[in-house]
Amino acid sequence: MVDHNGPKRLLLSLCLLAHLLAGNAMSAEPVAPVAIAIHGGAGTIVRDNMTADLEAQFEAKLTEALRAGHAILRDGGSSLDAVAATIEVMENSPLFNAGKGAVFNAEGVNELDASIMNGSDRQAGAVAGVRGIANPIHLARAVMDHSPHVMLMGEGALEFARAQGFNTVESDYFYTERRWQQLQDAQKQAGQFTVLPNDQLFSTVGAVALDQQGNLAAGTSTGGMTNKRFGRVGDSPIIGAGTWADNAGCAVSATGHGEFFIRTAVAHEICAQVRYRDMTIEEASDSVVQGTLKRMGGTGGVVAMDPEGNIAYSFNTAGMYRGGIDVNGEIYVGIYSD
Amino acid sequence: MVDHNGPKRLLLSLCLLAHLLAGNAMSAEPVAPVAIAIHGGAGTIVRDNMTADLEAQFEAKLTEALRAGHAILRDGGSSLDAVAATIEVMENSPLFNAGKGAVFNAEGVNELDASIMNGSDRQAGAVAGVRGIANPIHLARAVMDHSPHVMLMGEGALEFARAQGFNTVESDYFYTERRWQQLQDAQKQAGQFTVLPNDQLFSTVGAVALDQQGNLAAGTSTGGMTNKRFGRVGDSPIIGAGTWADNAGCAVSATGHGEFFIRTAVAHEICAQVRYRDMTIEEASDSVVQGTLKRMGGTGGVVAMDPEGNIAYSFNTAGMYRGGIDVNGEIYVGIYSD
Repeated sequence: MVDHNGPKRLLLSLCLLAHLLAGNAMSAEPVAPVAIAIHGGAGTIVRDNMTADLEAQFEAKLTEALRAGHAILRDGGSSLDAVAATIEVMENSPLFNAGKGAVFNAEGVNELDASIMNGSDRQAGAVAGVRGIANPIHLARAVMDHSPHVMLMGEGALEFARAQGFNTVESDYFYTERRWQQLQDAQKQAGQFTVLPNDQLFSTVGAVALDQQGNLAAGTSTGGMTNKRFGRVGDSPIIGAGTWADNAGCAVSATGHGEFFIRTAVAHEICAQVRYRDMTIEEASDSVVQGTLKRMGGTGGVVAMDPEGNIAYSFNTAGMYRGGIDVNGEIYVGIYSD
Repeated sequence: MVDHNGPKRLLLSLCLLAHLLAGNAMSAEPVAPVAIAIHGGAGTIVRDNMTADLEAQFEAKLTEALRAGHAILRDGGSSLDAVAATIEVMENSPLFNAGKGAVFNAEGVNELDASIMNGSDRQAGAVAGVRGIANPIHLARAVMDHSPHVMLMGEGALEFARAQGFNTVESDYFYTERRWQQLQDAQKQAGQFTVLPNDQLFSTVGAVALDQQGNLAAGTSTGGMTNKRFGRVGDSPIIGAGTWADNAGCAVSATGHGEFFIRTAVAHEICAQVRYRDMTIEEASDSVVQGTLKRMGGTGGVVAMDPEGNIAYSFNTAGMYRGGIDVNGEIYVGIYSD
């Protein structure tokens, strides 16, 4: 006997399959708010020194970095993964002072710093003064995940990287003509071992994010300061100064004249003001960046996020490369202060 | 004409001189309260493991260290100078894990960390992973005073030290049989690259002080953890974690399982609670050390001081080598928790 219902059953099955697939696709939509915000450095960024083409390059790369992290958050991934993926995009771009395109120290070498922190349990990882690692943010994450330590430096960090299967790159990987010229200029101006004045550009990169589980994370990556002394550690790898994340307070990534950020414990101080002074994330960020830090002479800025995903961008310089995708999915990218 | 008043005038002059000298001697007495407090490490320090002789050695050395710093404060010197001088005494003693007698890392090498901070302007200096420097606290001070940076690490720090005229010592300067044996035991127990369990002794040294000008300072110096991985940076050289000083809040030096202290930003967090939660120095220290830190599994302790010179000793271990000379000149030295 021929089953005349065969084609009908097949159609029903296909419909069911389509329905299930649609259901799966729908479940990939955010079930809880997610948000991400980034910076790509703060400093004397004024329209007169920019071209429309360079502006477009920065905006495109900031957008690409934001979307990389946001896709992870939207798909239910962790804020830690989102922060690392977003920073990786910026590390791989010669536009920013992190990974490829990092500035040169006084010896003409690229020494990289990075850190990452998880808001749910305040686990953290950091590396300082590493050479030959294309994506220091992933190494910082590996220190957090696969070592009993929070911070590793120099050769020891590199040894750990090799044991963890990280590939190393040759020093020419980091080379950009622009950064090399900046070093030559700095050394002509100021002599070796003298850093540039405060109003220079510090284009450290960083990100903060909130995932569907309600967990905050923060991360920061940098090549430090042009013409910095060999072995100088700035705020980027310092948990509490350049990076902080705590679900009970906020997540912060900073960029600027690192010495001042360490002496103000910027990232931790902002979160302390959120917790103890009942300030919004914006009030607390401004209180530190436009207040304490500025009075001290410390130039730079932060991106910060509270546990509801509210974003603050605060900087006391002419500009800060920055952007975010907020809890409503709205994207924002900015460069100048106005 | 004979001046019959000659002898009388001489007597008067002598009296005046004596009076002036007495005045000077009196002016060397504190015109404003001064205080100093120190720690020499926290951990499983119980009477059963101690001998009366060893107790006496610790008490004598803690007293000597306190008096060295207090003499400077009493004579009108700065809290920074007092902190450095006090820490130098402990660095030079093989009893403590700092300078001479520092623990060995996993490679059998002594890598030293130190930091110092000035409460009046929050200037700070730190060195991480330096080898061959007998008194890292003085190198941290030199970074603060004579470089544009806050933190230098490894070979870069050593290069700076040489440029500043620091002498280096051979590695056998740091050697003590006891620390070498601890490394052998640790590596037998745990394998290379695994640190000891939390309840071990972390005998970092540190000091906080208040000078006659009303300025606070804090400093910390350590050899880190026995069997630590090459390149590991603990909390001692991290401004905000192991060391913090701010006249508007407090001064703190910490000792303990550094990774937890970094993840809690212990020193800065205590001062934030003093400033924003209106807590006494003792309440804030306990809130962090007996609260947040302990819940996380972080063992260790702190000495802390407020701008009035009130001292807090807080630790969540069986003991902490500690002592202080308070604003009344009263000396206290303690080892165990009871």
